[in-house]
Amino acid sequence: MEDTGWRPVKRTRTFEDVLAQIERRITEDGLTVGDRLPAERQLAEQLGVSRSSVREAMRVLETLGVVSSQVGRGPDAGAVLTSRPDSALTDLLRLHLGLATLEMREVIDTRHMIEQWAAAQAAASRADTSALAAALAGMDAARTAEEFVEHDTAFHCAIADASGNRLIAAIMRSLRDSMRRYSVEAVRRLGDTSVLRADHVRILEAIERGAAGEATRAVSEHLAHAYPSLFAGPG
Amino acid sequence: MEDTGWRPVKRTRTFEDVLAQIERRITEDGLTVGDRLPAERQLAEQLGVSRSSVREAMRVLETLGVVSSQVGRGPDAGAVLTSRPDSALTDLLRLHLGLATLEMREVIDTRHMIEQWAAAQAAASRADTSALAAALAGMDAARTAEEFVEHDTAFHCAIADASGNRLIAAIMRSLRDSMRRYSVEAVRRLGDTSVLRADHVRILEAIERGAAGEATRAVSEHLAHAYPSLFAGPG
Repeated sequence: MEDTGWRPVKRTRTFEDVLAQIERRITEDGLTVGDRLPAERQLAEQLGVSRSSVREAMRVLETLGVVSSQVGRGPDAGAVLTSRPDSALTDLLRLHLGLATLEMREVIDTRHMIEQWAAAQAAASRADTSALAAALAGMDAARTAEEFVEHDTAFHCAIADASGNRLIAAIMRSLRDSMRRYSVEAVRRLGDTSVLRADHVRILEAIERGAAGEATRAVSEHLAHAYPSLFAGPG
Repeated sequence: MEDTGWRPVKRTRTFEDVLAQIERRITEDGLTVGDRLPAERQLAEQLGVSRSSVREAMRVLETLGVVSSQVGRGPDAGAVLTSRPDSALTDLLRLHLGLATLEMREVIDTRHMIEQWAAAQAAASRADTSALAAALAGMDAARTAEEFVEHDTAFHCAIADASGNRLIAAIMRSLRDSMRRYSVEAVRRLGDTSVLRADHVRILEAIERGAAGEATRAVSEHLAHAYPSLFAGPG
């Protein structure tokens, strides 16, 4: 394209101004989870903008998981600040996977990195493993691939929770949720899940014994069994 | 709360139906980056909903980084599908950090995990290091903490890019962007950046030599120098 010497003027849209003001109240005035924002009409009056601009800003904040949706609360209730980074991350990953701009291989490699780290942390801190044992029992009782994947997801998210890092746990949960369909297919293709069961027991026992290195290796070999065609192997 | 035996009816909001239909077109009909969605008015007519519901759905998709904002294109242009997961992730992390539901320690531990992994991958694949060298030169020429952090961010994002995993690179970029203010304070507190410089040279040379283990150790020690009070140390 010919350079005319002109540059486009950056036009800020009204809802973006609303967003910026809400974000400033959060970071500078210390608004936090549980605090209520003014009702839509009141906020629109105070900011001198249309109610639809306020509504658009609220949709953005809901999408990012920082205000709760107020379905059925009526327009005067005012949105409540919340913090659900994992649901926001899940929507984000699912859509970018849908657009095929991220490959399943990249998601599984990311999961591999996180899960090795989390298993080692959980082992080192001798974390509580009761959620892992419960998920294992759930997998044993599962009658369909969907049910199996539900409890399998709980097992692996419990490892991330046990690491004690909430950001890493949120990323893990969103990775698993966004690849749910793919996991169900992988379990169906595998048919027999006894190898996966043995892997899960090995991971659980290594974390219980506080054996970080063994937990890391068990996670790697488990992913190689679960995704034989995709798994990149230890870097 | 007393259990009355009644459960709230799940009410779907109109813009959520619009979103679901757009997502179905993406995943089932293979709409992808560069494809154009119908204009706001046209989409509202085809779906039998108000234009404001369509606009709310578009704000959600913009927020998630899957449609580009059409500022100045006029309402008939129609949004274009895009894929910018890192800008979406940055907004998400910045707001959750602002709400103080994530601690800087959790962000830095996540960065440590990613950066060790990425440096090892980059070394193992003998990745191109020219972007790292350019960022190093930028840091040497920096006159303020802000300028230093800008090039420092470029250096560390270049390591993640060199790993070849776009999801991990997007997470890294968003972590760095969301903690920018904190990084500037850390550099100011440190005053002398010569230790950081030596660390960067060591990371760069280890990647160039293909020494994955040395690159991993160099990343760890660098973060301990940069954030002495916060850094958790190797797990």
